[in-house]
Amino acid sequence: MKKSFASDNWSGACPEIMQALQEVNQGHMAAYGEENEAATAAAVQNFKAHFGESAATFFVYNGTAANVLATSHIMRPYQAIVSAHSAHMNEDECGAPEKISGSKILGIETEDGKIKPEQVKPFLHSIGFQHHSQPKVISISQVTEKGTVYTPDEVKALADFAHSNNMYLHMDGARISNAAVALNMDFHQFTVDVGVDVLSFGGTKNGLMFGEAVVFLNSELAKDFEYHRKQNMQLHSKMRFIAAQFNCYLTDGLWKQNAGHANEMARLLGEKLSELGIIITRPVAANGVFAIIPESKIPAINKEYSFHVWDVNTSEVRLMCAWDTTPEDVEGFVETVKRFL
Amino acid sequence: MKKSFASDNWSGACPEIMQALQEVNQGHMAAYGEENEAATAAAVQNFKAHFGESAATFFVYNGTAANVLATSHIMRPYQAIVSAHSAHMNEDECGAPEKISGSKILGIETEDGKIKPEQVKPFLHSIGFQHHSQPKVISISQVTEKGTVYTPDEVKALADFAHSNNMYLHMDGARISNAAVALNMDFHQFTVDVGVDVLSFGGTKNGLMFGEAVVFLNSELAKDFEYHRKQNMQLHSKMRFIAAQFNCYLTDGLWKQNAGHANEMARLLGEKLSELGIIITRPVAANGVFAIIPESKIPAINKEYSFHVWDVNTSEVRLMCAWDTTPEDVEGFVETVKRFL
Amino acid sequence: MKKSFASDNWSGACPEIMQALQEVNQGHMAAYGEENEAATAAAVQNFKAHFGESAATFFVYNGTAANVLATSHIMRPYQAIVSAHSAHMNEDECGAPEKISGSKILGIETEDGKIKPEQVKPFLHSIGFQHHSQPKVISISQVTEKGTVYTPDEVKALADFAHSNNMYLHMDGARISNAAVALNMDFHQFTVDVGVDVLSFGGTKNGLMFGEAVVFLNSELAKDFEYHRKQNMQLHSKMRFIAAQFNCYLTDGLWKQNAGHANEMARLLGEKLSELGIIITRPVAANGVFAIIPESKIPAINKEYSFHVWDVNTSEVRLMCAWDTTPEDVEGFVETVKRFL
Amino acid sequence: MKKSFASDNWSGACPEIMQALQEVNQGHMAAYGEENEAATAAAVQNFKAHFGESAATFFVYNGTAANVLATSHIMRPYQAIVSAHSAHMNEDECGAPEKISGSKILGIETEDGKIKPEQVKPFLHSIGFQHHSQPKVISISQVTEKGTVYTPDEVKALADFAHSNNMYLHMDGARISNAAVALNMDFHQFTVDVGVDVLSFGGTKNGLMFGEAVVFLNSELAKDFEYHRKQNMQLHSKMRFIAAQFNCYLTDGLWKQNAGHANEMARLLGEKLSELGIIITRPVAANGVFAIIPESKIPAINKEYSFHVWDVNTSEVRLMCAWDTTPEDVEGFVETVKRFL
Repeated sequence: MKKSFASDNWSGACPEIMQALQEVNQGHMAAYGEENEAATAAAVQNFKAHFGESAATFFVYNGTAANVLATSHIMRPYQAIVSAHSAHMNEDECGAPEKISGSKILGIETEDGKIKPEQVKPFLHSIGFQHHSQPKVISISQVTEKGTVYTPDEVKALADFAHSNNMYLHMDGARISNAAVALNMDFHQFTVDVGVDVLSFGGTKNGLMFGEAVVFLNSELAKDFEYHRKQNMQLHSKMRFIAAQFNCYLTDGLWKQNAGHANEMARLLGEKLSELGIIITRPVAANGVFAIIPESKIPAINKEYSFHVWDVNTSEVRLMCAWDTTPEDVEGFVETVKRFL
Repeated sequence: MKKSFASDNWSGACPEIMQALQEVNQGHMAAYGEENEAATAAAVQNFKAHFGESAATFFVYNGTAANVLATSHIMRPYQAIVSAHSAHMNEDECGAPEKISGSKILGIETEDGKIKPEQVKPFLHSIGFQHHSQPKVISISQVTEKGTVYTPDEVKALADFAHSNNMYLHMDGARISNAAVALNMDFHQFTVDVGVDVLSFGGTKNGLMFGEAVVFLNSELAKDFEYHRKQNMQLHSKMRFIAAQFNCYLTDGLWKQNAGHANEMARLLGEKLSELGIIITRPVAANGVFAIIPESKIPAINKEYSFHVWDVNTSEVRLMCAWDTTPEDVEGFVETVKRFL
Repeated sequence: MKKSFASDNWSGACPEIMQALQEVNQGHMAAYGEENEAATAAAVQNFKAHFGESAATFFVYNGTAANVLATSHIMRPYQAIVSAHSAHMNEDECGAPEKISGSKILGIETEDGKIKPEQVKPFLHSIGFQHHSQPKVISISQVTEKGTVYTPDEVKALADFAHSNNMYLHMDGARISNAAVALNMDFHQFTVDVGVDVLSFGGTKNGLMFGEAVVFLNSELAKDFEYHRKQNMQLHSKMRFIAAQFNCYLTDGLWKQNAGHANEMARLLGEKLSELGIIITRPVAANGVFAIIPESKIPAINKEYSFHVWDVNTSEVRLMCAWDTTPEDVEGFVETVKRFL
Repeated sequence: MKKSFASDNWSGACPEIMQALQEVNQGHMAAYGEENEAATAAAVQNFKAHFGESAATFFVYNGTAANVLATSHIMRPYQAIVSAHSAHMNEDECGAPEKISGSKILGIETEDGKIKPEQVKPFLHSIGFQHHSQPKVISISQVTEKGTVYTPDEVKALADFAHSNNMYLHMDGARISNAAVALNMDFHQFTVDVGVDVLSFGGTKNGLMFGEAVVFLNSELAKDFEYHRKQNMQLHSKMRFIAAQFNCYLTDGLWKQNAGHANEMARLLGEKLSELGIIITRPVAANGVFAIIPESKIPAINKEYSFHVWDVNTSEVRLMCAWDTTPEDVEGFVETVKRFL
């Protein structure tokens, strides 16, 4: 099968990760990361190295679970999450947050996928009014679903606003490594340093085989999370296999190498399409390119390269680059587009 | 770390599985098993080969999810599961079935972990009485948590009873391969052939890295299960990696080879301990041995080999063998016990 | 305390209802409406008289429960309700639908509180896509929260659309009697005759003390509802006291008398305020009047008469009339407004 | 219909309660007990008069809700309730606690419906073990479902045990007035004085029309309960009608008069049946009598007087007396039994 631009999760696991899985596959280790099992203990430490000593990290299977469990743990069902309407949690989880937490998501319409404190503010009117869900968590995606990246200042403004109003700030970091590269920063600079309370730390979209992490930057919030994870069916028995992937990912900059490459390929793709006269609808900030491709041409191109139509009304498509996208893939795609235009 | 007899999930992934993961890790494939992605389509077919054409199979991450989602999909919250009190679903899931399904588990006390129709019968008094949860699913574990194995006739009696009373029969097959070897049968002989409606098919305890399967033998019951799985956070994006493991597991008898070995090691362990004068409390039917080890000796032995105390009152311990337990491991453990007695 | 225009549920129980409660309070009757208890059996029949023989009616405590249980019974958690964003279910239940059903509400922005099939249509794109909640129930309010009333043709268009797409139509009839009077119709003409599947039939806002009804017009949908009601804490033990109220309400036109009076008072109030030069923002269709009262005058007027500000941005207020609002109340309010203008 | 001994909730509302409902039915009052509505404010005060200044009281519709909401508010889904297996919460709520709280009930088999600290103790082994639900609330019924009454010392032992283990003590007081009379005590003596944390205070079984109260004796636990109540569909709009009943019930000893009468009738019934040679299986402590009536005679007697068979195996029946049971009812029943023996 040829490469695709459909999603970064169409890629496989990168070689370093496969190697790490191979290496941790030695004999017996305590299940569930219990009894101080070494790989898991090391992974928890690795997160502390990136996010500070008070980071409390728990591994789960996927991004849906990371987002849903991170938020539901710090709220009660009668409280609400405030997020962009376009947030993955709101749009693409088949109602998982509502089912698992029993709570409501209050959506904000945005142009670029980013929300601002003043957009959250109107929801505060509900506080103290027993007929309304009580806003408790602001959730932002970094990178957003529209390809944009929050600056640390923007995150800080939301965190400060949240904390001033007895709320928490959650970051959906399914593509947090791509954001870090885009910002040219370490993870902590746009998370713990600016007030994020809990983080979904993604790896699968950037070269892992499976597994994501819930990172409580405010470790008091982590209390009893192990039970919450277990009850919600997200405790892996052979935990070492998730832990080893994160150890590999976080130790020698694999996260940066993979994300840097994906972002660079997106930049290249945007540039080349632009040269063809294709309209790039949003600045290429991370590893996604949004572009207008004439509706009549999409089916033919799609036969050769998979990608998703983002907005049927405007014929805007989304093109995602992954850790394994090559310049030749980009070139091949651009040539194909050219051929059909 | 030395081998342990704590649980079969303390083992790693077997070499064939590692090889299969390596091989499927080629380029891009559609995420979520969508768009007829090849590995997933093949795995679904492989289950049909074992369970018949009407088997509808869905992959999830772990056994908790397989059990909870298989059962909750075919009932409503006001209905109940009837199981042995000792069932993993009832005892060891931190309340996952109650949380995810909203329903009640009605437990039956058993000596050997197996339930009989006459033990389910008293719960039928609740049918039609609006103040009581309505029994809808009988759930049995094969192998049971007490190391016993249901015969096909025993399963059939429960299935017939269930169907006569408008109920379903679910089988928790976390160790279904060990059961098949113990019975010297193919899977279908003690499942679909005798009326099981839905099955949790386990692999992780027998050499897989991660991933279990929900197999609806009555495919009409599978309707809409994909949404149920997604909403409950069990849809893997890089699905090929679960599928490939099951393709490997089911194609050339890996399941039988691994389970057969584990069962044989348990037989050997039981025999050797017996020769030492240790009381083996239950017949060694599959890959677990239950034995009485004097309470005062347990801590010392446990320092060298991990295992779990099953019943603190009787000093009964549980010793599990895995696909990678060697005769030397057995010998070493027996020697250690001997030394401390 | 003087009369208020805050809400029709600030009124008490009307004298006929008090009398009915008195009369049914004779000796012992089977609890829970069981064993063919007479008052409850009669009430169920009374609903058949209004809605046809296939109507299956169940009593619950309040409107929140009627709406939540009516809809959650006919869907699964991975399915969604589509409603106006302004629907009481979406806005004013503190997340009860999400908590109790585990499902999502997909909101539609409207000017007048009414939704149209073409506004529901875009949500159909989600059908068959496992990442999205599956639209299953369209819920409309009759009277709407913005004081408007659906015509039978408008209801029929939604019902036909729902049924063509394998969906159901639910009507929140918290003020269904006011709607019937406004339309000058019997209940069945704008419900069962035009395809409504299930109905929340309200009484409390129109003279009852407590109790609402869930009426399945398609009685097949009612299967097992008694368990759903019980599990969700809505089964009253002394059921006769809810039943007797509805027997009184439905037998000799009490519903029409009370609602007709409330609607007439609203008409009068709208007319008088209009004469003062107050802008009436929406046609007075039932028992609510929406009007612009200068922001600076509201607190003073509110000290004498309770009412709610509907839109702080436009200084629009909502004035509800009840079964016991008198022409003198209306006059008094208008005089007060006049005094402060 | 003649009187019945089926349940105390087969009785109607007592005259004083009907009078109180009549009296509070004057004009408009703020809905939901909001804006310091007088009847509700008075009722909250009345509970303080009985249970001390720190009592925080909330009204709900029925006993199911009082029990489920009182407990679920002070725990998380991964925590568990420990109760007698015979507890109403466990046996007779169609799974409401599991559905609403998402948590597990751990049952204790008892002879007399009462549990002791040593029976709870084994469940503490689960604490800290992530695979097990974490015991958090001990729930006892006062009067128990088997007609027995806890002494203050017995309650205190459980409360002390709970608090020593970071747990709470909940009392299901559906028949708390009957217990108070049986103990010849004020409510506080066997609740707040001995460490109960939260109480379901029942009225419906003792002369009310509808409505129960959740009383947090430890008022810190009450934080945010109003949202929990609303989201779980238990907020009554015309709150005054519940409040007025409790004002009547608690002010001039109506609770004591009704319960005292019911208990006295039970004592009389037990005595008279005993004189007939009928075996009374449990001491008559409150308003229930448990007796052996020959199986062959039950249907005939049941045609004249309703009552429930408690244990089909032993032919034990339960006979409940209510606030309105008369000596003539008792006499009539005894004569009937005599006739058929």
